[in-house]
Order: sequence, then structure tokens, then C-alpha cells
Amino acid sequence: MFLPNLKSLKDALKCIEDNQKVLGTEKIFLKDAHKRVLAEKIVSSHDFPPFDKSTRDGFAINSKDTLDISESNPKSFKIIDFIGAGFFSGKTLSNYEAIEISTEAPIPSGADAIIMKEDVSVNGDEVKLFSKVSSDDFIYKKGKDIKKREIILQKNTLIDFQEIGLIASAGYNEVEVYKKPKIKLFVTGSELVQPSKTLEKAKIMNSNQFTISSLIKNSGAIVEVEHIKDDFDSLVDSINQATKEFDAIITTGGTAISKKDLIFDVVNSIGKVLFRGVDIRPGKLFVCGIVNDTMVFNFSGSPVAAITQYDIFARKYIFKMEGVDFYLNFVERELLFDFSSKLGVVDFSRFIADDDYVIKMVKHSSDATSSLIDANYMFIDKNIEKCKKGDLVKVLFFNSMTW
Amino acid sequence: MFLPNLKSLKDALKCIEDNQKVLGTEKIFLKDAHKRVLAEKIVSSHDFPPFDKSTRDGFAINSKDTLDISESNPKSFKIIDFIGAGFFSGKTLSNYEAIEISTEAPIPSGADAIIMKEDVSVNGDEVKLFSKVSSDDFIYKKGKDIKKREIILQKNTLIDFQEIGLIASAGYNEVEVYKKPKIKLFVTGSELVQPSKTLEKAKIMNSNQFTISSLIKNSGAIVEVEHIKDDFDSLVDSINQATKEFDAIITTGGTAISKKDLIFDVVNSIGKVLFRGVDIRPGKLFVCGIVNDTMVFNFSGSPVAAITQYDIFARKYIFKMEGVDFYLNFVERELLFDFSSKLGVVDFSRFIADDDYVIKMVKHSSDATSSLIDANYMFIDKNIEKCKKGDLVKVLFFNSMTW
Repeated sequence: MFLPNLKSLKDALKCIEDNQKVLGTEKIFLKDAHKRVLAEKIVSSHDFPPFDKSTRDGFAINSKDTLDISESNPKSFKIIDFIGAGFFSGKTLSNYEAIEISTEAPIPSGADAIIMKEDVSVNGDEVKLFSKVSSDDFIYKKGKDIKKREIILQKNTLIDFQEIGLIASAGYNEVEVYKKPKIKLFVTGSELVQPSKTLEKAKIMNSNQFTISSLIKNSGAIVEVEHIKDDFDSLVDSINQATKEFDAIITTGGTAISKKDLIFDVVNSIGKVLFRGVDIRPGKLFVCGIVNDTMVFNFSGSPVAAITQYDIFARKYIFKMEGVDFYLNFVERELLFDFSSKLGVVDFSRFIADDDYVIKMVKHSSDATSSLIDANYMFIDKNIEKCKKGDLVKVLFFNSMTW
Repeated sequence: MFLPNLKSLKDALKCIEDNQKVLGTEKIFLKDAHKRVLAEKIVSSHDFPPFDKSTRDGFAINSKDTLDISESNPKSFKIIDFIGAGFFSGKTLSNYEAIEISTEAPIPSGADAIIMKEDVSVNGDEVKLFSKVSSDDFIYKKGKDIKKREIILQKNTLIDFQEIGLIASAGYNEVEVYKKPKIKLFVTGSELVQPSKTLEKAKIMNSNQFTISSLIKNSGAIVEVEHIKDDFDSLVDSINQATKEFDAIITTGGTAISKKDLIFDVVNSIGKVLFRGVDIRPGKLFVCGIVNDTMVFNFSGSPVAAITQYDIFARKYIFKMEGVDFYLNFVERELLFDFSSKLGVVDFSRFIADDDYVIKMVKHSSDATSSLIDANYMFIDKNIEKCKKGDLVKVLFFNSMTW
């Protein structure tokens, strides 16, 4: 019997986890840190804001001077200075004095409130107020957003637009980040040819190199693709060489037992096969091994099986190499039809799902790349044979897996 | 009164739409097309698969020869050839003949079914079958996935991992895509300095250059950042020059009325201001203009206001420049607390929301960059003053807006 000892999904994931490698770190400029992963915690060098500042264009005054002001009892203040954003005033307010101030500028000494430009009238160096103001009006207090020495981001945080702004505010012009994983993708298969408008008999357009390299890019890693011949000796040379230059190797094709499928034998001869075959569908024919301390994932040649193998096994490994924990983020949806699964196999079939329901199946062949457009995974565990209309099932949205 | 004529959100979006520019196209290699946008429809050059092919390693046979085979009545077939993936056989099966075949290889003449390797026993050039098979077993029929001349992807589709595989299968080694928008980001404000562990009095760390440029990258565009002084003449020169080299211009700061805020005046003097001020919060102080036929978005200096302005106005414009329609994808969530909004203002405040609920507010100052971590927008329309616990409200998830 072929593949008598299929590894369970859980054991396969554990086995990969036990062989996880985490990359080193490097210091880069913050401007280059978008979508990189922090390898240090971020501690604020400053209070933020660093001083009490105005949140409006207007006039800095002392609220005590305004206690008896009303529409019918306005009062004039003498304008003694102007503070633009980025500047400060050396002056201190005395009674019934005001300093004109811009948004973002620091509150001058003696002032405790801002009145907005549109609420006053100005005549020469006098400003007339028609209402009283309260202490702290339109003042954003020093340290309100972030306190000096506060830890504002933890190590292993992915840096997107929100985080990069915070890191800047904390005073970092450079950050320590994990190196980007470099992945070698070997596409095997004598039947595969480059996309072309003409096609020789028995040949198939090579789509795996494009889908899998896009998935690798979506995981924040760098990919180099090479199409190699199904020849034992050249496979040995190519894989050995790649272990010296890359952080992990992915191959597609060559996982089945046949005269022309050799990758298992190659890994077995120059390294250690961790397991061969997993109890999932599609993607059963998945081989995982270590060559020269480098992880080698052998995906199926069938496009959808290869994508599923990437989603379940390789993405988690690649994320973790660059410091990020990744989990398959299942959500529950109600099934709108009956569905039969195969006992003993964890099913990751493709279905159309929305915010509430799993609506319908897509074409099921693992060759059907077109089955992936608008589809998502439905997860049926291996002890489940039938799902009925109305059941809650687990769904994995493709877009929950992008970097 | 300052800004007497706030543009309504709807009118502001319409005004930007009326001035939408769409970029030209270019032909690139498919390997470089990840996350680009199709500027042509994709028509398959071939049936896919291009021939009836085997989906298993095994033996191609004629199912009629197996009608009376059973466990107790096995039958031997003569193996007359082997077909590896990428090859084909010139031979035609006669009665009780079999051809060994690999997954992906084309079905030979005279065969109509595959029996899996693990279900037979082989002895020299004889293969013994123990069960009957049905016509089409383990055969994936020509054109089942895609038919020749079928339109498989429409123009204006974003190319991710699923699409790129389909385009390859359709026979395209090059594709026509929209050019990537080149955006110039001018950050203004004398108060802004580069991130550093020390900070001069009245100065503020420049975080906008990092947040806004990350948002631009998340929209698939190219960004070049420049910090410019708040000086009328140099602003005129810089903006004029940028209109020659970039597809759109974004500035931050300089939208309020103050002695040091000049961008409105600059756009007004060398181009046309489309509108100044929108009835949203945060982000009211948004100026939009055209200079030398190039869109200029003037964002607030306050980080959160600037991000909100990007999310609501600029992202849609940038997506559309490269061929993609973008809509704010609101979902409904139940509110877990009472909330007061301001009449006459469309509220885009930041809240923590999950799959079911809006759970709590975050800090509300538009300076509080930290309020963006884990937050999402809650949308409260301008005719709503109070939302109560239990109400369904509209939520906009940040992660629904990435490229």
C-alpha cells in the first residue's frame, strides 16, 4: 500500500515546529521598515506630546481672566506675542494679555486655555472675547498620548502604518528588525513549460512558479525561482547549493511515487526526510525534510494542492523565521447545503463563503486553479463524514493570511 | 466664522471623482505582475488541461476489459509502455494491455480509465488487477477547468496568487498592466524634526512622513517623501516641480488658517482649490486642489486626521489611478456602550471592534497615533446625535483597505 503511515495534520505541524529556525536581525532606517518585524521593543524617548500644546489656531489666555465674560459683557485682551508651530514664546502672560498661537505650538507661560480664532474678533493688537473659557480648553497635555520610558511596542510586532508612526514618535530613526527570509523555489516536472500561446503535446503551462512565488511574497519573504529537470544528480547539486544561499527551500512536483518523481529520494539521500504524506485533502502528497540544516518543503505538482500545502505548512514556518507567530484564523459560518467528506482525512476544500454563510462549492479538482478565485477554505475534521445544511462549519478566509 | 462652507462628505467624494485621472498601461513579464492591475482581459489560448490527463500514478487501461474482474477473479494485463509527465505514448492499447502512467501525463489512445499503482500488483511486464474500474476513473478531462478562448479574467483585476496562476495557465508570459502611481509626499511644519532620542523645545517628531508613506505603499503606489519649509516661494517651486514628475501630490500640515500655514494659499495661487474643509471628524481641515492638471491633497498635520483623510479620500483616488475601484467596505456591528456624536459632522472615530461587537472607544485626540493600534473606524452619519448600547452601527476595518 502506498503511503501507509500518513502523518496526522497535528503531528506534521508539530514536526515542522520542532525544526523551526528563526533568522538573525539587522538595524535599518525607519523609512525602510514598512512591513518588517521588530526585533526589539520600542521604548519612548519622550513624552508625547513633548509639551502642553495647542490643538487649535487661536489665542492662549488665562481662563481666570474670562470668568465674567459673556456675549453682553465682552472683554479685550492685549496680544503680546505670536507662537507658530515649531516655535515658543519667552514671554509670560499678565492679566488680560493673550498670545496668538498656532495649532501644534507650545502653550506659553501663564496661559491655561486656548480660545479659537473663529470665536473672537481681532482689532490691531487687541483681541475681544465674547464667552468664558475653561482651564485646559484646546490644550493637549504633555505625555497624554505616550509617557517617556513607556514601552509602546513589543518585540515581534509587524510594522504597518500605525506602528511606524508610533516608532517615529518614540524617537527612533533606526530599528532592529528580523532579516527577510530568502526562499528558493524549485519547480520540477518535465511536463511544465513557460506560459506561451502555443503548447507542445503532453506539456502543461507552469503556473506553480507564479502562484507559489506570489504566496511567498505575500508572506514578506524574498523568492528566487528555478525550473529544474527531474534528474537525480542535478537535483542533488541544486538543493545542496541552495541550502548554502537560502533560508528555506520549496519544491513543487516530485512527491508522488513514479519513475520520474525523484525529490523524495534526493532529500532522503542527502538529508533527512521528516515525514512523507499528511492526512489532508488536497495536499496529501507533502514531503518535508532537512538538508544541511535547511528546511525543504516538497509540494505537490497539482496547483491547488501546492497552494493548500503552502497555506497550512510553509506560511507558518516562513512567518516564524522572521519573528511572527501565525495561526490559521478559522471563523464559523452556517452551511447552506449538505456536504460529504471522507473519514480519516482533514478536508480543506474550496468554497464560496460570505460574512454569514458557506454558499456553495467550487470545482474540486486540485488542478483547477480557477477554483481559487473568490474561494476560501472550509475545514472539515477527519472524524466528520457528513455536514448538513444549517451546520456551523469552520472557514478559513484567504485574505486572513496575507502579510 | 472659519470655514463657513464645509463640503459634505458626499460632495467632496464626487468632486474628487470628477477630477479622477487614470494612468497609462505598460507590458511587463508575468513574473513581475504580482499585485499589479490587469489592463487587458485574459483569454485562454488553450483548453486547460490541454489533454485528458491522469490524476494518479498508475496504469492506463480500457474499463471494458475489467468488467468481470473481482478480488476472487483477478486478471493480468500486459504492460506495453510507460508515459512520464511531459511525455506521450505513440502506442494504442489492445485488449488486456496496459500502459504505466504518471500523474499529469496524457491518457494514451485506447485507454479510458486509470487504476492506481497501489491497487494492483506488478510482476515483470504484467500488471494484475483485482477490481473493475469505471470509464473516466482518475482522468481529468481536456478543457474541464478552462476552455480555449474563454475569458478567464476581466480587465481591472488585481493580480494576486490565484490570478497569476490562471494567467500563466492561459498562456500569457507577459501582461498589460496599469502603471504604478508615483506619489510625492510633502511634509510641512517648522515644528517637525526627524525622529531622534533628543528633542529641541517646541519641536515634534515627524511621524506623518512614515504613516502616510506606508499607507501609500499599502495602496500599491510608489512614494517619494520630502520635508519642506513653510515658505510660500519654495512651496510654489516644489509643488510646480512635483506636478511634472508625479501622478499626484499629498501634503501634510498647512491646512489651518494661521500665519505659518500656507499650502492653501499656494494651491490657490498656482492652481485651483476644489474645496476647503469637509464635514467629517477627524479630518475636517482637508484641502483638495488641482495644480498643472495634477491632484493635490492637503492633509492635516495631526497624524490621525491625516490618516483618516487618506483612508476616505486619497486611497480611492490612488486605487482608481491604477485601475481599481475602491469602496469603503462598511460592516455592521452591535454597540456595547452609549455614544454621543456631533450633529452635522460625519464621525470616523476609532474604536475597538471584533467579529460581533464594537467593544470600546480608544483615545480620541487626532494626535494620538497610539489610538490606531488594533482600532477600526466607527461611522456615525451627520444626522445622528446619540447611539445607544445595542444599536447596530457601521464599522470600517482597517485591514479591509489594504492592497
